[in-house]
Amino acid sequence: MADTLHTTDAFASLLAPRSVAVIGASDDVTRIGGRPLRYMREGGFAGRIFPVNPKRETVQGLPAFADVAALPEVPDTAILALPAAATLAAVEACVAKGLRSAVVFSAGFAETGAEGVALQARIAAVAREGGLRLLGPNCLGVMNPGAGWYGTFSVVLDGELMQSGPVGIVSQSGAYGSHLAHLARARGMGISQWVTTGNEMDISLAEALEHVIARPETKVVMAYAEGIHDGDRFRAALETARELGKAVIFTKTGRTDVGAKAAASHTAALAGSDAVFDAVLRQYGVHRALTTPEQLDVAYAAARGHYPESERVGIFTMSGGFGIQLADDCAAAGLDVAPMPEDAQAELKAMLPYASPVNPVDATAQAVSDMSILTAYVKAMMERGGYDMFSAILGTGPASRSFASPLLAALKAGLDGHDDRIRGLTMSAPRDVVAEYEAEGFLVYEDGAALANAFGALARFRKGFARADAALAPAPRVDLPAGPVSEAAAKVILGRAGIRFPGERLARTGEEAAVAAAAVGFPAVLKICSPDILHKTEVGGVALDIRTAQAAREATEAMLARVAEACPDARIEGVLVAPMIGGGVETIVGVHDDPGFGPVVMFGLGGIFVEVLKDVTFRAAPFGVEEAHRMIREIRGFPLLEGARGAQPADVDALARLLSDLSRFAAAHADRIAGIDLNPVRVMPEGEGVVALDALLVMKEEDHG
Amino acid sequence: MADTLHTTDAFASLLAPRSVAVIGASDDVTRIGGRPLRYMREGGFAGRIFPVNPKRETVQGLPAFADVAALPEVPDTAILALPAAATLAAVEACVAKGLRSAVVFSAGFAETGAEGVALQARIAAVAREGGLRLLGPNCLGVMNPGAGWYGTFSVVLDGELMQSGPVGIVSQSGAYGSHLAHLARARGMGISQWVTTGNEMDISLAEALEHVIARPETKVVMAYAEGIHDGDRFRAALETARELGKAVIFTKTGRTDVGAKAAASHTAALAGSDAVFDAVLRQYGVHRALTTPEQLDVAYAAARGHYPESERVGIFTMSGGFGIQLADDCAAAGLDVAPMPEDAQAELKAMLPYASPVNPVDATAQAVSDMSILTAYVKAMMERGGYDMFSAILGTGPASRSFASPLLAALKAGLDGHDDRIRGLTMSAPRDVVAEYEAEGFLVYEDGAALANAFGALARFRKGFARADAALAPAPRVDLPAGPVSEAAAKVILGRAGIRFPGERLARTGEEAAVAAAAVGFPAVLKICSPDILHKTEVGGVALDIRTAQAAREATEAMLARVAEACPDARIEGVLVAPMIGGGVETIVGVHDDPGFGPVVMFGLGGIFVEVLKDVTFRAAPFGVEEAHRMIREIRGFPLLEGARGAQPADVDALARLLSDLSRFAAAHADRIAGIDLNPVRVMPEGEGVVALDALLVMKEEDHG
Repeated sequence: MADTLHTTDAFASLLAPRSVAVIGASDDVTRIGGRPLRYMREGGFAGRIFPVNPKRETVQGLPAFADVAALPEVPDTAILALPAAATLAAVEACVAKGLRSAVVFSAGFAETGAEGVALQARIAAVAREGGLRLLGPNCLGVMNPGAGWYGTFSVVLDGELMQSGPVGIVSQSGAYGSHLAHLARARGMGISQWVTTGNEMDISLAEALEHVIARPETKVVMAYAEGIHDGDRFRAALETARELGKAVIFTKTGRTDVGAKAAASHTAALAGSDAVFDAVLRQYGVHRALTTPEQLDVAYAAARGHYPESERVGIFTMSGGFGIQLADDCAAAGLDVAPMPEDAQAELKAMLPYASPVNPVDATAQAVSDMSILTAYVKAMMERGGYDMFSAILGTGPASRSFASPLLAALKAGLDGHDDRIRGLTMSAPRDVVAEYEAEGFLVYEDGAALANAFGALARFRKGFARADAALAPAPRVDLPAGPVSEAAAKVILGRAGIRFPGERLARTGEEAAVAAAAVGFPAVLKICSPDILHKTEVGGVALDIRTAQAAREATEAMLARVAEACPDARIEGVLVAPMIGGGVETIVGVHDDPGFGPVVMFGLGGIFVEVLKDVTFRAAPFGVEEAHRMIREIRGFPLLEGARGAQPADVDALARLLSDLSRFAAAHADRIAGIDLNPVRVMPEGEGVVALDALLVMKEEDHG
Repeated sequence: MADTLHTTDAFASLLAPRSVAVIGASDDVTRIGGRPLRYMREGGFAGRIFPVNPKRETVQGLPAFADVAALPEVPDTAILALPAAATLAAVEACVAKGLRSAVVFSAGFAETGAEGVALQARIAAVAREGGLRLLGPNCLGVMNPGAGWYGTFSVVLDGELMQSGPVGIVSQSGAYGSHLAHLARARGMGISQWVTTGNEMDISLAEALEHVIARPETKVVMAYAEGIHDGDRFRAALETARELGKAVIFTKTGRTDVGAKAAASHTAALAGSDAVFDAVLRQYGVHRALTTPEQLDVAYAAARGHYPESERVGIFTMSGGFGIQLADDCAAAGLDVAPMPEDAQAELKAMLPYASPVNPVDATAQAVSDMSILTAYVKAMMERGGYDMFSAILGTGPASRSFASPLLAALKAGLDGHDDRIRGLTMSAPRDVVAEYEAEGFLVYEDGAALANAFGALARFRKGFARADAALAPAPRVDLPAGPVSEAAAKVILGRAGIRFPGERLARTGEEAAVAAAAVGFPAVLKICSPDILHKTEVGGVALDIRTAQAAREATEAMLARVAEACPDARIEGVLVAPMIGGGVETIVGVHDDPGFGPVVMFGLGGIFVEVLKDVTFRAAPFGVEEAHRMIREIRGFPLLEGARGAQPADVDALARLLSDLSRFAAAHADRIAGIDLNPVRVMPEGEGVVALDALLVMKEEDHG
């Protein structure tokens, strides 16, 4: 494994090389080996370009070299525009020359079957040993428009190159990455870096994300993934973005079962559970866009790097209907459409009796005839409304040139001195008019719902950036047994992790059970205790509501006999005798091992909530108490924990501590634990804690590798 | 009230007049009185235009008339482009001349306060008495591009008029109606009629909808409302659309509390409950769009008047990532992304080993190099996949002219002979290329999610059109008492409507209660019975779990004494003695009187479902058993009725009958009944029916008008 410094250097050479070899360079500017050269020359790449083509003296006017060995220097990076079969030799040549990074365009590897998988693995091994970092194969490469660096053959550059700007794009799919670039360009958005990772034989989406986020010119990132296999690195990248205050807007496929199935058939990526991926994005304040237009709309707003202090939004309109619509859209986006103060309303009413100066502040068409009204109204909204976001609704008005400039002037006058507020507007107008408004700081949308959704995202980003959760100490390691664990043993282990269980006793005979039941108190519960029996009820291994010592004795003897017959090979530790605990709110908590993200904690309410409504939520472990609080509040049934229906509020603090403790325990033993179930966990009234009534701990198979 | 024929005639004169008076006509083509004349002349209006302006000989080159009386004939309709203060006189002149319809542009009426309300009411009365139908005031009027009829001053026509086509637009807001027209024009969609209803002093959105739907040239309608006050007419219009197989796509404001509040401050319309409006749209198979782009996207697809036989959709792609995304989007839209048959997959694999021919059918970039593969793959999808909808993913490819035509030819060849299938595609290309594809029957979208959502809507429209619910017989009227109704009386009345209650007895003394309890069976429930006590528990008027005759006697005597003290003025009929019934699934059913739609039936599961999750649904009464079945399936907790968690399936048929019976009863007595609560209603296991345990019937105040 390369060290961090080396990795960073290699990535710098990939994202902003000073010299490039194009291996398989072509004179034909429409071919894969011809396009990068052409784009770099059109884009004014200032570094040195070395075409490698054994058959030619020059390529596109540049002197060509017969092979990599013949190059006059070690280039920062190389583009491999070669057939799959020629790639291994080229990678070996790059290693021999001492290159640090290369981009492999060719398809024909892991995506084509077993032979391709083997070839890809071989190339990856050669590169790894030689300290060469590889992007691809089966990818569209990389670009950095500010440097004129186009290590790509994407046809999206055919008519027009990209502008340089604050938007990073990182995509596993080259086609989707090109689509995003196309849409960003059409929207007037400039790009910092663009990286497509394809088959990811070496560089993953997570690593690319990490480096694109870290570049100072990047203010916002649009990302696309089908699956993540290095969850820790991915989480670290997202945490860096959060700390730097850079917004990440994600689309991920496989959000439906159909999509997940299609993803599995398309790539080698382990898709994992979409619900887990979704939870991780929430955990790090990432915006998950469900559609591409949404991804663009949010990135467009975030590209300014300017976020609102609160959710308060003021809406200025000259059409009532449009105002109501935008109010609806803002409310649906989680924004606060707070009314103007009463006295300010009265003053605005005095100025224009027909107006509706609440919020939306509707100045009616009168504000078009007399734009001083518009300015006065907007000024009042700024000075009196306490809005951190402002949107005007202009409709098709600015499409008329004679109207566009005076309207902009009137708006600007009203907003003057309030550059700290987010300013947006909806209108339908030609691109040059839009650009004129954008130059004055306006975020311009054609559709109100899109604006509201983007404003809502800005407010959530701000909250995510501002989080200051307590640092997480690693949980201490405890000794874990090999092989299956009984309920009693699981409770001892998890008890050390801070999980609270009822006072229970293990009884080996009916007589012991009678004594134990009297000690724990009636009514009691009896449960067979064996590392080999996961589903106790199915073998008659549970007895409820035991009310006397005699009943405990008889039930235990019957249970031991029943289970011995049903599971003759099971190791029986005895019968767990526990007090029967009711009350509180029934919840379930679990941990499973996600292929991409490792241990993941699940939380939900018990009974119909989990079984009928699937009302559960997830977090990748470990996480702190603050995050656990956010997690708990995501379930629809949360009001039950707050004391809905006249019940006492439940001890949510204790529940949050349990979730965090469990997550830290699971993370510290991720190499050993396959899963944990605490079901049910009763959340008692405030101040009375939580108690887990049952525990299942499943160990991973021993690694015999 | 005008008779139907008259109404239809008046509407014909408004939507397609052969002659028009423009009262307040202006030479200035940018003024309200100048624009309609200019638009009509630019649009080639073939009828006669009579400018009315006492100060001029001619207006915009046409001979002008001093007043309405001086017109040489009775025009079909008139445009009133006058200040509010001059409107009454003009309406009187129109009545005197014998006009049947007029459009009132002016603002300054009901939206400005009490004086405006009075003036508007006066004008409406004059018109009604004179048989003159009025559109407006405070509206942008009407257009019919096919006839060159532009009874509007909307600036949206400034640069370019509308094309004629299949799309009707009906909007309460002029600004929003103009926005829709603008977007439709930009999308290449032609308009049949366009009507904005403004303050609705006479013609409502519902009536306009009814007539625009009925016009043969209309195939699809986009509608916008803030509130509906004539729910019956509205429902009739939607039912007509359903029967004619014409899609209606609605946006309605006020879907959030914030929006509803803003709507109430903006218009005189009674917004009613948004949940009820939403339910009515579902009831009639209308698509409610949450955003304007969604409204356009669905209308664009439906404008062909071509609907799929099933939900099966086949996706053809040359990029894996895009394919997965569209599969996700289609699944989220309720479509069936069914795989190709195994043998067909094998054949396609044989043709191209790297392909992934499941669905999405991914022919890889190979299909670009060799378009015969594309054709063969698409052909196989048509012949073997059984897809009623087809979408290809073309990306930015067709943006290149040299690629656009061969690609279209290859696709067409694959689809040849399958014009019965819906064909769509996603691509980013200039408008003229899009038009070329559209001319070959393709629905073209830039975004996959938009296409999927529109396809999903097409499939739902088709289902809605195909419904053949049994005709509803009106429920017989029963005698209803004046004033408050006790539980016992309510149960007698509702029992006649077919609702089943437990066998109960009314006892006036402790002794009678003891006898009654023995008769109904133990355990029994006692409930105070009085028309004057709505909340029995609060006054100690309920006793549960009565297990002996003695207990019944004592509890009854104590209850009568307690209630006599708590409510000395209440008329006490006695104590209802009922068997205590458990089991089944607890639900609640209610009826309330919606200001726009009259009696509305609510249904939900009891307990936390209604209290915490607000898991309820609505239907406007009356409705049949089939609709009740659809209603029941809308709640999230429906699996509980199907027998989730190992329970027996509940008697959903009986529940549907109860809902339909109650709706018919409520509709038949809408003039008398303010509300009904049946809570709880226990839905027993299949075949065992439903039983309502409690009933509350609230009568309307007597009308003293």
